[in-house]
Amino acid sequence: MARIDFYDDPDAPPANSLVPSANAVVVDDAGRLLLIHRTDNDNWSLPGGAMDLGESLPETAVREVREETGIDCEITGLVGIYTDPKHVLLYTSDGEVRQEFSVVFTARAVGGQPTPSSESRAVEWVDREDVLALPMHRSMRLRVQHFLENRPTPHLG
Amino acid sequence: MARIDFYDDPDAPPANSLVPSANAVVVDDAGRLLLIHRTDNDNWSLPGGAMDLGESLPETAVREVREETGIDCEITGLVGIYTDPKHVLLYTSDGEVRQEFSVVFTARAVGGQPTPSSESRAVEWVDREDVLALPMHRSMRLRVQHFLENRPTPHLG
Repeated sequence: MARIDFYDDPDAPPANSLVPSANAVVVDDAGRLLLIHRTDNDNWSLPGGAMDLGESLPETAVREVREETGIDCEITGLVGIYTDPKHVLLYTSDGEVRQEFSVVFTARAVGGQPTPSSESRAVEWVDREDVLALPMHRSMRLRVQHFLENRPTPHLG
Repeated sequence: MARIDFYDDPDAPPANSLVPSANAVVVDDAGRLLLIHRTDNDNWSLPGGAMDLGESLPETAVREVREETGIDCEITGLVGIYTDPKHVLLYTSDGEVRQEFSVVFTARAVGGQPTPSSESRAVEWVDREDVLALPMHRSMRLRVQHFLENRPTPHLG
């Protein structure tokens, strides 16, 4: 399924859907960050995805990290809340247009091995100083930057 | 529209809906908290409600506070994220069963006068030490308690 990101774009289709999602910045003992190379576009990304009924949002983050990367993690904190209506995501298969809604947690890896999935053609531990050189959508880059800045309070936007 | 809260109840209907919402703990210059007496059940509550397409979640909080209380506020921080699947809300008019999903912000009052609405039969500034004596659903009481405890990090649940 192809996904196209629009940011502050007059040609963006109007949002018709709101799906709460979670991402996680997962860190290993060496301080590296867990990134995936997405299959639905050519960007690198933090693992994450949509919340299911019956789970809490931190549980969503842990489940999505396991599904997309093969890594088990535990949540340690919060980078921020990202709900900018100027960012919408078009799913070309069915015309769904989601308004951005992601809560970005911090997490610590506790087990597993990096394992690609149908949603991630590559899964890699990336050194902090190399992360921002990867191709990344600007909305994802913003989340990673906020993490790297070690902000004292979460982003609320 | 009547709303019935279930918490960890074997008789609770299964959730069929997930609606991101925001609440705010609004504080005035005297340190009092803004509470509403709900019309859809007999509890007191922090103002708040469901996110609309086209706004960010902090904007939801500011809009709902204005609509439900007549008070203008600005967001100052975060109490926590409350997405416990054991808490569901039944709307008796249409059978919708929402799983809890609320982000609770802190805010500072910057204008307006307490004004009841169709959703709030009373709107009051309440001294900090009197807040927990009000009848309140346990999930709402938890959010207020977390605020009063001045926790160094937000609740992530």
